[in-house]
Amino acid sequence: MSELRSDMIVNRWVIISPRRGARPHDYKNDERAKMQPGPCAFCPNHEHETGPETFAIREDGKLRGPCWRVRVVANKYPAVATDVESSDGLCVYSNGVFEGCKLPGFGSHEVVVETPDHYKTFTQLPMAQIEDVFKAYQARVTCLSQDKRFKFVQVFKNHGNAAGASMSHSHSQIIALPVVTKSMEEAVAGTKSYFERTHRCVLCDIIHQDLVTCRDRLVAESPFCIAVCPYAPCFPHETWILPRTHNSNFATVPADQINGAAKMLKTLLLKMEKAFHLPPYNFMLHTALLDDCHVPYYHWYIRIVPHLITVAGFELGSGCYINPVSPEDSAQLLSNTNVDDY
Amino acid sequence: MSELRSDMIVNRWVIISPRRGARPHDYKNDERAKMQPGPCAFCPNHEHETGPETFAIREDGKLRGPCWRVRVVANKYPAVATDVESSDGLCVYSNGVFEGCKLPGFGSHEVVVETPDHYKTFTQLPMAQIEDVFKAYQARVTCLSQDKRFKFVQVFKNHGNAAGASMSHSHSQIIALPVVTKSMEEAVAGTKSYFERTHRCVLCDIIHQDLVTCRDRLVAESPFCIAVCPYAPCFPHETWILPRTHNSNFATVPADQINGAAKMLKTLLLKMEKAFHLPPYNFMLHTALLDDCHVPYYHWYIRIVPHLITVAGFELGSGCYINPVSPEDSAQLLSNTNVDDY
Repeated sequence: MSELRSDMIVNRWVIISPRRGARPHDYKNDERAKMQPGPCAFCPNHEHETGPETFAIREDGKLRGPCWRVRVVANKYPAVATDVESSDGLCVYSNGVFEGCKLPGFGSHEVVVETPDHYKTFTQLPMAQIEDVFKAYQARVTCLSQDKRFKFVQVFKNHGNAAGASMSHSHSQIIALPVVTKSMEEAVAGTKSYFERTHRCVLCDIIHQDLVTCRDRLVAESPFCIAVCPYAPCFPHETWILPRTHNSNFATVPADQINGAAKMLKTLLLKMEKAFHLPPYNFMLHTALLDDCHVPYYHWYIRIVPHLITVAGFELGSGCYINPVSPEDSAQLLSNTNVDDY
Repeated sequence: MSELRSDMIVNRWVIISPRRGARPHDYKNDERAKMQPGPCAFCPNHEHETGPETFAIREDGKLRGPCWRVRVVANKYPAVATDVESSDGLCVYSNGVFEGCKLPGFGSHEVVVETPDHYKTFTQLPMAQIEDVFKAYQARVTCLSQDKRFKFVQVFKNHGNAAGASMSHSHSQIIALPVVTKSMEEAVAGTKSYFERTHRCVLCDIIHQDLVTCRDRLVAESPFCIAVCPYAPCFPHETWILPRTHNSNFATVPADQINGAAKMLKTLLLKMEKAFHLPPYNFMLHTALLDDCHVPYYHWYIRIVPHLITVAGFELGSGCYINPVSPEDSAQLLSNTNVDDY
């Protein structure tokens, strides 16, 4: 039987409809990521083909040269750019009924090249390399936080064409904006409202619920974090990594906690690769608004979404997602997927 | 130069970033809809393979038999169903921190088979047939409105695998729910708030703006409606059909106005087919909450989204969409796409 479930943070109904998994399809899925041959602009000795470097980790401690392990550069085809008028002051255009609805495309858009090796996927990287990627994330989020023009930052990875990756060389991206985005506005309002009602952080409560009260949605646990399928997920096999220690601000999280989350991320992605045959996926790192250094209601976390179904007319129209897999079934499948020898 | 634009109805920022259209892709798009051979469960003489019929238009006026032009049936693999306990009363489950966040999967999920011909696409149907499809939409929305357990109804079409269609025989769907979905909640709040500020309907104002003040986003006009690219669209070439006459409730719109919108829909879909080489697409029919028969702030309309890009990690994380085509460029392209002889 299907269920309607409400995400208590953003107050959004989803439909959990396991029966629909059995419906006939007269199409075949051929969405798997296809690696394109290198070298590309993200490869060593092609550094001049990217935007300027903003951060790098190099083998020999040098500041320049091709011996880098991780490299952060300005996106050469940015969605937003820092070289335009910022949104400070009075540069809001007037436009009739849409007055006040337009700002210049000011913002930061960077690419994190996760490895010099064109052919290695994120999950093929050794843990030390993935830890370096997270070190780069933290360095850049810290730096962007110091620019008072930015209110919001999103670290995210698109893996595979169907998940939005236009380059197959393993990379992630960081976008900072001078405005508060829709989902962030909702998350702040929802977590704040829960805190005002209960004097507790909602993710701290969910961690307790999923570890102690009912472990049906628990996928994995480690000393630093737990991985759960959320109660009202929009997407099948959507999984969250929740750090055990409350911290709203990713920029200030100690290295051992970040490395713990990074290890859990690799484990979960390997489980998804094994269970769903190398699916395209996205992961998103969520941290508090840049003005809110340390708030008791927001809790940093990582969200992983394998791309297994299509967002269609009902979702586009209603904002209500139909998910053919319950989070409890998903957690059982993923926790039973052994990747020790994978 | 890119821009940040805010959708004034739901207060959502989008990034209009035309420069990104030029970025390199090392993947190829092979998402075009592929027609599967018939017959299928939606074909004549296979009526027993669908769920029960709830409405049909037949050539000979008969109530039964294979001579139908349009047929509405219960979805055999429904996301929600009417044969479960309804959400009235006290059937909300308790579940610790998620208390009150779960309802049984009560609702209505129907399929509108738009033609008996397995091989005809929506845009290949003659106007009289498309008018019959809209007659079916209105009959079913009217009927579902009379069931006081439903609060929300969504009519939508998925065309092509990449737009979520699992069957290639031309069809659309109708889902009614006992809850108010996220986007509907936002649309009601946004349009109501605009009305309280201005004493006017925001879509009536947008029609005036796009017809009189600045015609840069106008795609087409007819005596009954206009087609515009919205000011802050989430998706490239997203287009809205706005009826000139204010009416919040699709169930009560006169036939000539509905047929005018249906004709505009066919014209726009033909333009998109010609301009974008038969893309997958969704269209969604938006009508007021079922409790709100006639409200001055909500305006029924049709939204068309061709599937040309992928929703990726940034959009999933932030709720902010990066759109590589400005609505002004899109309107120019679509209005210049001549389909008179198409």
